Amino acid sequence: MNDASTKNDLERPSLVIDNIGQLVTCAGDRAGGPESALAIVDDAAIAIVGDRIEYAGPAAGLAENDIDLGNARQLDAGGLLVTPGFVDSHTHVVFAGDRSAEFAHRCAGASYLEILQAGGGILATVRATRAASEESLAELCADRLERFADQGVTTIEVKSGYGLTLADELKMLRAIRQAADSSPLRVETTLLGAHALPEEYQGRREHYVSLVCEDMIPEAAESGLARFTDVFVEEGAFTARDASRIAKAASDNGLGLRLHVDQLTAGGGAELAADLGALSADHLEEISPEGIRSLARAGVCAGLLPTSTLFLRLTKYAPGRELADAGVAIALGTNFNPGSAMSENHSLTLGLACLRNGLTPAEALLASTVGAAGSLRLEGEAGCLEPGSRADLVVHRATDYRHLAFHLGMPHAAVVVAGGRILRESGPLTSCQG
Amino acid sequence: MNDASTKNDLERPSLVIDNIGQLVTCAGDRAGGPESALAIVDDAAIAIVGDRIEYAGPAAGLAENDIDLGNARQLDAGGLLVTPGFVDSHTHVVFAGDRSAEFAHRCAGASYLEILQAGGGILATVRATRAASEESLAELCADRLERFADQGVTTIEVKSGYGLTLADELKMLRAIRQAADSSPLRVETTLLGAHALPEEYQGRREHYVSLVCEDMIPEAAESGLARFTDVFVEEGAFTARDASRIAKAASDNGLGLRLHVDQLTAGGGAELAADLGALSADHLEEISPEGIRSLARAGVCAGLLPTSTLFLRLTKYAPGRELADAGVAIALGTNFNPGSAMSENHSLTLGLACLRNGLTPAEALLASTVGAAGSLRLEGEAGCLEPGSRADLVVHRATDYRHLAFHLGMPHAAVVVAGGRILRESGPLTSCQG
Repeated sequence: MNDASTKNDLERPSLVIDNIGQLVTCAGDRAGGPESALAIVDDAAIAIVGDRIEYAGPAAGLAENDIDLGNARQLDAGGLLVTPGFVDSHTHVVFAGDRSAEFAHRCAGASYLEILQAGGGILATVRATRAASEESLAELCADRLERFADQGVTTIEVKSGYGLTLADELKMLRAIRQAADSSPLRVETTLLGAHALPEEYQGRREHYVSLVCEDMIPEAAESGLARFTDVFVEEGAFTARDASRIAKAASDNGLGLRLHVDQLTAGGGAELAADLGALSADHLEEISPEGIRSLARAGVCAGLLPTSTLFLRLTKYAPGRELADAGVAIALGTNFNPGSAMSENHSLTLGLACLRNGLTPAEALLASTVGAAGSLRLEGEAGCLEPGSRADLVVHRATDYRHLAFHLGMPHAAVVVAGGRILRESGPLTSCQG
Repeated sequence: MNDASTKNDLERPSLVIDNIGQLVTCAGDRAGGPESALAIVDDAAIAIVGDRIEYAGPAAGLAENDIDLGNARQLDAGGLLVTPGFVDSHTHVVFAGDRSAEFAHRCAGASYLEILQAGGGILATVRATRAASEESLAELCADRLERFADQGVTTIEVKSGYGLTLADELKMLRAIRQAADSSPLRVETTLLGAHALPEEYQGRREHYVSLVCEDMIPEAAESGLARFTDVFVEEGAFTARDASRIAKAASDNGLGLRLHVDQLTAGGGAELAADLGALSADHLEEISPEGIRSLARAGVCAGLLPTSTLFLRLTKYAPGRELADAGVAIALGTNFNPGSAMSENHSLTLGLACLRNGLTPAEALLASTVGAAGSLRLEGEAGCLEPGSRADLVVHRATDYRHLAFHLGMPHAAVVVAGGRILRESGPLTSCQG
């Protein structure tokens, strides 16, 4: 007797992916080390019911678990690699304007001050974003989300932070929501009111922080437009004291805390993140050994953003190796933004994490999936393939997960599935591993 | 009276591209500096007859030059940027095997010696390539050429160098030719017999160099399978004396000389390239000030390969700024190969040239077009858009050429034309400059 015969259609798979040469579920035991956490299964299959994973494991398990294939759409993975969809835990996808000319000036040797004097820098993006309509920002966001989806990114955090008034920050958050509503990607939204001090508050930083704490955070939380808030803690930006005030407001309003810390100057930012109970401390190029221990002790996630280290021409990358060895959970993000990381190329971020942050390909893949999901409080939901998790996955043009970081900065996604829907099917299912 | 009325069909445009927002012909006066060399035309059009550019300039010039549009296919460039197709002057596209596992070992801290002991390194690729059939190598090459074409690369240099026997080097060259014959890309072939010393010649390097000089070079030249020869001059590879012998054989057999020099150790390689009359001295991370002066004096092209500097985790990039300031002609290449630059991402190379070699976006674009063409002796033929040059061009999803390097490592090609044929038309003709 077969239980499946009594299942209704909702419990029958809508999509079955078989002939998976290497399935990396990222749902294994993380305490057992990276290889264990990857939980690799050769000759595997996946069954999806609606937007959820029903089964992910050995191909033989489909029959053993009495999974009724019924009228499921079947996709032959051609013996290729399947991983969870990538999770990008740190981006600034919504902005208006273009800073190509500023980039050229910077390449020609212009100093930071000269760029500011020429009207460049973050405040140029703020001016353009303030001038843009919610509708146009939503369109720009949607185009960029498409490019992320092309890479196999299925969950993405997006920050505000180029509005810097209550109205413009909320406009950005609504634009993100609007783009998210028409996107198959899962989009998690962060209010970054404390990204830069707007021109009209020069010399009155504490007043601006009050605006963030008393108006922006309550409104963003009440409207449900943001799950997190974030602060750029840096010389010339916001102080530890500002961050403490914002952390308190976030806590009072039920928003999770994320921090940009220890990027350009060593400022005890990781220790601050630990003290404030942040979910994630991001950048960390200048983190101290004590900062690494603090993150480990407090269970704060380290967000590595190597594309911006490269883009800013810094030679010191965040010490991913030391962070991993200290037992800190690591998340990867592109940090896509027009000033310091103008690239949606997630594959490049993955490769740089290996080449420059000292991670292994296994650790980098975990940081791009379960690690990033953990920093967004999406454990078990995103970044892994196990029964009940969202059916977000990628069939890659490769047969081994190590190829993803090795074949640097190249897109590998042959098929992208998000929420159980096939988004992308590009070209034949062949490996480029040779 | 209109002369065009007397033209036969061959002289009538087969393809006309209009509504070009920014045309960068790269056909301007290089003595006038990078901006002058780019020769930018706003509101432009291009007319193509067969595989050649008939006209590239202001849109109004089509009528002024009595160009009979006849039955030409018309392509509306949507106000976007058009540049020459990219020229990649240094690649190793043909090889068998996959070194993902070796990459993972390297990331986990394995030393060069440990990797060699585990059967890795260049000789692993040599073993796999020797074992592969000409047919399978041609297929691998063709797949990779497709990925280059996706990026807008329309001319590419491809080296042998993983055979290291007469038969296997010729097999590689025939595989390149076979792939080239079925590819719309222009492929220029280089014999790199002196890439590494094969295991069977350990301790007998001079005998191997004799094989290169007396057998490989004459055969490659006589069969027409190679236009150039190349030598990897480096500690543990080949010496200046070896390079001199090979240069003599190349000259005797009518092959142009290219050199890998000054990559890992400062060895006076640029000076050697100047002495030997090489067309191109590539890598140059460790070039000396005297080496820079030598290249300038001798008119040797400098080949910058920043992807491999990144991939090898070197912190010292070739001094592109100093080379440009000294008046050295610069070419860019991906150096695509499985050991030190596993990436066909030409956009990444372009961006790294700005971020890490110190070029401006204008200089990097010139190095990827006319500069690389010059190093391959294809001046006026490839890398520029002027009457008579090969009709190789890209319509980019951007409105300004500076966006190409700024938007790091992302493909921008919306339409790729090679030899007058439209190869790629992907998605709507919209800009991602916002």
